[in-house]
Amino acid sequence: MSVTPKFRVGILGASGYTGADLVRLLLTHPNVEIALMTAERKAGMPIGDVFPHLAGYDLPDLIGLDEVEWPAVELDVVFCALPHATSQEVIKGLLHATGHSLLDEMVVETTGDLADSISGEVKVVDLSADFRLRDTDVYAQWYGREHSAVTLQPKAVYGLPEVNRDQVRKAHLVACPGCYPTAALLALIPLLKAGQISAEDIIIDAKSGVSGAGRSLKEANLFVEVAEAMHPYAVGQHRHMPEIEQELTLAAGEDVRISFTPHLVPMNRGELETIYVRLKEGTTVGDLKDQLVDAYADEPFVSILEEGVVPATRMVRGSNRCVLNVFQDRIPGRAIVVSAIDNLVKGSSGQAIQNMNLMLGLDETTGLMQAPMFP
Amino acid sequence: MSVTPKFRVGILGASGYTGADLVRLLLTHPNVEIALMTAERKAGMPIGDVFPHLAGYDLPDLIGLDEVEWPAVELDVVFCALPHATSQEVIKGLLHATGHSLLDEMVVETTGDLADSISGEVKVVDLSADFRLRDTDVYAQWYGREHSAVTLQPKAVYGLPEVNRDQVRKAHLVACPGCYPTAALLALIPLLKAGQISAEDIIIDAKSGVSGAGRSLKEANLFVEVAEAMHPYAVGQHRHMPEIEQELTLAAGEDVRISFTPHLVPMNRGELETIYVRLKEGTTVGDLKDQLVDAYADEPFVSILEEGVVPATRMVRGSNRCVLNVFQDRIPGRAIVVSAIDNLVKGSSGQAIQNMNLMLGLDETTGLMQAPMFP
Amino acid sequence: MSVTPKFRVGILGASGYTGADLVRLLLTHPNVEIALMTAERKAGMPIGDVFPHLAGYDLPDLIGLDEVEWPAVELDVVFCALPHATSQEVIKGLLHATGHSLLDEMVVETTGDLADSISGEVKVVDLSADFRLRDTDVYAQWYGREHSAVTLQPKAVYGLPEVNRDQVRKAHLVACPGCYPTAALLALIPLLKAGQISAEDIIIDAKSGVSGAGRSLKEANLFVEVAEAMHPYAVGQHRHMPEIEQELTLAAGEDVRISFTPHLVPMNRGELETIYVRLKEGTTVGDLKDQLVDAYADEPFVSILEEGVVPATRMVRGSNRCVLNVFQDRIPGRAIVVSAIDNLVKGSSGQAIQNMNLMLGLDETTGLMQAPMFP
Amino acid sequence: MSVTPKFRVGILGASGYTGADLVRLLLTHPNVEIALMTAERKAGMPIGDVFPHLAGYDLPDLIGLDEVEWPAVELDVVFCALPHATSQEVIKGLLHATGHSLLDEMVVETTGDLADSISGEVKVVDLSADFRLRDTDVYAQWYGREHSAVTLQPKAVYGLPEVNRDQVRKAHLVACPGCYPTAALLALIPLLKAGQISAEDIIIDAKSGVSGAGRSLKEANLFVEVAEAMHPYAVGQHRHMPEIEQELTLAAGEDVRISFTPHLVPMNRGELETIYVRLKEGTTVGDLKDQLVDAYADEPFVSILEEGVVPATRMVRGSNRCVLNVFQDRIPGRAIVVSAIDNLVKGSSGQAIQNMNLMLGLDETTGLMQAPMFP
Repeated sequence: MSVTPKFRVGILGASGYTGADLVRLLLTHPNVEIALMTAERKAGMPIGDVFPHLAGYDLPDLIGLDEVEWPAVELDVVFCALPHATSQEVIKGLLHATGHSLLDEMVVETTGDLADSISGEVKVVDLSADFRLRDTDVYAQWYGREHSAVTLQPKAVYGLPEVNRDQVRKAHLVACPGCYPTAALLALIPLLKAGQISAEDIIIDAKSGVSGAGRSLKEANLFVEVAEAMHPYAVGQHRHMPEIEQELTLAAGEDVRISFTPHLVPMNRGELETIYVRLKEGTTVGDLKDQLVDAYADEPFVSILEEGVVPATRMVRGSNRCVLNVFQDRIPGRAIVVSAIDNLVKGSSGQAIQNMNLMLGLDETTGLMQAPMFP
Repeated sequence: MSVTPKFRVGILGASGYTGADLVRLLLTHPNVEIALMTAERKAGMPIGDVFPHLAGYDLPDLIGLDEVEWPAVELDVVFCALPHATSQEVIKGLLHATGHSLLDEMVVETTGDLADSISGEVKVVDLSADFRLRDTDVYAQWYGREHSAVTLQPKAVYGLPEVNRDQVRKAHLVACPGCYPTAALLALIPLLKAGQISAEDIIIDAKSGVSGAGRSLKEANLFVEVAEAMHPYAVGQHRHMPEIEQELTLAAGEDVRISFTPHLVPMNRGELETIYVRLKEGTTVGDLKDQLVDAYADEPFVSILEEGVVPATRMVRGSNRCVLNVFQDRIPGRAIVVSAIDNLVKGSSGQAIQNMNLMLGLDETTGLMQAPMFP
Repeated sequence: MSVTPKFRVGILGASGYTGADLVRLLLTHPNVEIALMTAERKAGMPIGDVFPHLAGYDLPDLIGLDEVEWPAVELDVVFCALPHATSQEVIKGLLHATGHSLLDEMVVETTGDLADSISGEVKVVDLSADFRLRDTDVYAQWYGREHSAVTLQPKAVYGLPEVNRDQVRKAHLVACPGCYPTAALLALIPLLKAGQISAEDIIIDAKSGVSGAGRSLKEANLFVEVAEAMHPYAVGQHRHMPEIEQELTLAAGEDVRISFTPHLVPMNRGELETIYVRLKEGTTVGDLKDQLVDAYADEPFVSILEEGVVPATRMVRGSNRCVLNVFQDRIPGRAIVVSAIDNLVKGSSGQAIQNMNLMLGLDETTGLMQAPMFP
Repeated sequence: MSVTPKFRVGILGASGYTGADLVRLLLTHPNVEIALMTAERKAGMPIGDVFPHLAGYDLPDLIGLDEVEWPAVELDVVFCALPHATSQEVIKGLLHATGHSLLDEMVVETTGDLADSISGEVKVVDLSADFRLRDTDVYAQWYGREHSAVTLQPKAVYGLPEVNRDQVRKAHLVACPGCYPTAALLALIPLLKAGQISAEDIIIDAKSGVSGAGRSLKEANLFVEVAEAMHPYAVGQHRHMPEIEQELTLAAGEDVRISFTPHLVPMNRGELETIYVRLKEGTTVGDLKDQLVDAYADEPFVSILEEGVVPATRMVRGSNRCVLNVFQDRIPGRAIVVSAIDNLVKGSSGQAIQNMNLMLGLDETTGLMQAPMFP
């Protein structure tokens, strides 16, 4: 029996929920092995002490970032699940340390050939917000600090495979979309591209499970504060707004300004967006539906539901699926698009692996075909 | 020590969640005694067998509606928490049985004098949808059957005390607003009356706890189906839409058509509406806030939160409060109004008691000053 | 209209969940006014900023403990909801500052006369563990530090009114039982006193909502860690064990050693204990039931459920009730006693108020007759 | 590329939660294809209409049991997830229809050879209670009806692979253990076999998520009844008691009578048992731990946690794992064993697949190595 060589993968920032879900999913991925995991405050600990559900697997202990010996560790892929700002610094550092060609020239195309990829330079999949905004001034404005990798930014590819698949395939640095942008963009990009909806008055009412808030110790995330309750947050101020607008503007070919209000819902996982749009003259809800069906006909992870079936987070729990549907609004000339994903999978770790698969020339669905878990 | 005479109260349909919360609240109301409770399938049972948390109180057993001896039972107030359609028939029946003057003439004004009220004719507070829609044709269209009390309908008062207080005081038949309408109308009526927001493009994204769905046995309401998940329902089809539109149209003085999408959230109680509105030329978000502060300055149950504080359902749990706030939308010329209530209290049983207090000439807040319960 | 003079009440440590529930309950108590609230990290803030559900009431702002001017504030009652160890120091300090007679002589009896009480010395109701253990050596052993108020300890009364009502009436310092002890002792004391069950092999399997863990920032209390999961904690090591044993030993007249295992359950409130006991020769389950019915026949807050009805936390949510029942075990000679309370009410703040009522000569149930909240 | 022939699998009763989890797990099992799914009330529907999370997969529509053409459908394995009593009848029927040798002779041994198995007679994995109790009189007593397949019963193997692996390998009819028995037996059998604990006074306090109650419409399973609450049920009467006693008696070599009390906890999945045992003279808690470590050293699905780590349901969510640990009880001579599983996986569908793997001669872990899902 021949043994498939496995890609060596590192996870920077493995002690958060995103890191945990990367591990969960990669453990059953047939083509990779987890060779490195870092976590600052928990350096030195086995991952099973940090996430008891991951005890008992053959995984390296957590180490601090400064303990990583970059060229020596010989990683094929690095997932960077660090806080924004830190991410930039660390990615610059590791590219330097590995003498990566990304630093001095334009993005190198991969051949897509497996053997080549394995022997090639490290691929970086960034799950932070650091390389999502194409305009570093916008970054500075929303994240309250100057971007520290301005020359690297243009080489990053925005990793929404359903939209940018070809670019992702050739990328060495992919910026994974935020969870809210993922659900919104999958719903809206085909409609804006087709000129079916107005670029004005797009209103996104978003609802998320609590894992999206991360594992940091904030009173607002305590069980008692969240359970048996709900509320909006960051009204008119959420950092995913400029990200969504950037990609919608690209799709629409004109400036898009959105209304976006996220809400915290007492559940661990799941994200649902109810999106209110204005139809262009002569367009019907049926046209929108047809457009989405068409756009995603061959997509393994995006499903358009049947007439009248409402997307629900329980349809996608734990999986890399996005479910969409379109509804007639009571106000004439308007429609409602509903989009549901698992914020930790399609909204984060799953999409990161989907990007990795593309970057490594693997089948895009490898390791991502788990059925949703319900109940 | 003199003993205050107590009003005799009946609850028709006491075995639902609305009925249970009526009992919970009335048990500490100083001016009433619960003299009658009906429930069809549970007739003959003590309420404690149906709702164990209500065991041990001095309460009458549940009886069937046809066992009620209408004049003999000598009720001062009847709360009707029956399903729609049934409500009409039962209210007509009890008015007949008590020879109520409401049947043959126009609404009689109460004097507001306590002694008079006690000796007067029965007051009916209907918690169903049966008398909410002023136009019985609209009723027929949305509820799928002809209205069976067409001549009674004009005598019913829409029981939103913050808007119709004076009419409620004189009413003998009050139709309590639906839970969704309550949260929406308190947020929007002052703004429309003041001409600050457009009557067009009002988009209401509503989220409710599961008690709003009642205690009936539906697969969709099982714990496992709801927990750790969320989804919209009745998109573009919810029966609270015409009710909201009716009252907004009255307030605006022009036809209002709304977009309204309710969502089911895994919590028992609580309702939150995120309402997206368009500002009239020259109006600012600050103007909206001022208007709400003004409108509700003397209202005991409506609070406008301070700058930047988001309404949350945990602020009102178990109480008759509504909390409101206004936020700048990112889209210029738009604003976001957020409204939170407890769907079973201000959205139903509490508001019913508030109406009763007014109808009986009692202080409006009697028995309703419980602080919210958090955790 | 004559105005009843109100007792002036202070809450030390008002920013925790226990403090919040004290405020919730005291707001509708007819005989008290909240004159003082302290909180160290949140000193200077209005309570509504710390607990938004308490905004809008006429309450003093939070101040730091060192800002309290002890004699000048003229409190009739102090609730001390501070962490253990701190509690001792603070209570000693306030007794000194007010020149309290408790410091130099034996406990003074109250006359039970209202006017006298108002003009009398301050009453202290301690909700911490600091005065619960009668033996200060046991305290030192379980709390990891010497007791710092050794001479005060004997003057404290263990505040379980159903057991120590007369002593509480005369007390100036009451130590409120822990939540787990409350549920256990109400179930077991009458049975041990009657000699119906063995003092050996008492096994208490306890389950609690998360509010029992307080509002402190621990990863283990984050929503995501708790929701959709459960687990035991502090197995064989929980500090409520010696407290339970102390009171059971008193009741039994012989040494009692218990097995006690608490579990964390994904709910905000509620505590349920399933207690496995061995029947004394010749005793039946029916005898146990009769004994409990007898013991609590006149108790306003303890209910023995009917044959076969299982105590459930939803029967007591938000209320000061305890519900109990007894069941035949499958193992001959054993029985199962089930006890449910709301950990924040009968298990903490409600019981504290019950003690206050007794200490002030008020009706024991004043302000505590809220019906449980279900849903 | 050669194609592995796949075993054809049928699921009888696919519209319950157990059926859904069978489908979820089998969808990624490399050696089987789902060839048949039945559901009576939902016959004719695609599975995606019944379980939207399973929409979009290549699966047969649901049919009624009487539509199954038994020999023609050529199943290699049948999972029977039907209600008890029905199960017996249906299994008898399908064995008849396929002319199965199980009906007229003793259990036939499988060769363990893959090709043979495929061409062999159908294997039945029953998830109901119908073949779990070896004594059909005990069955009649606990299930309120005579057993209708008395001669088949002795040929059924009790499918707890960690205990009966060899028998399962050769079986044609396996009775999967109940969820509660699975957690209890894995914890206790090694200890009883080793004579380390007393067969008397074994007290099992069990807690389960709500999916264990199935998808049937009962008021007690509504979200509002369960959420934010907990309670025991079936105290002293649960049907899993005789099943647990049967297997413990076999292990102990003497009669075992247990105390068993299940509780309903507001979570979808997960089961935790806190088991109180008496140590045999001279045995220590350390001995128990060593025994469990030893017994499960080579087991892929059972983990003994490290010193002091408490089993928690979140460690096993969605996976086929069981986690165990042992703790010193405060009462001398006693110990506490804690066991956690996912009731739908190791407690039901996962274990059924584990049995299937053994019966088909596949690697026991095939398709069952998903990491637990946390959050």
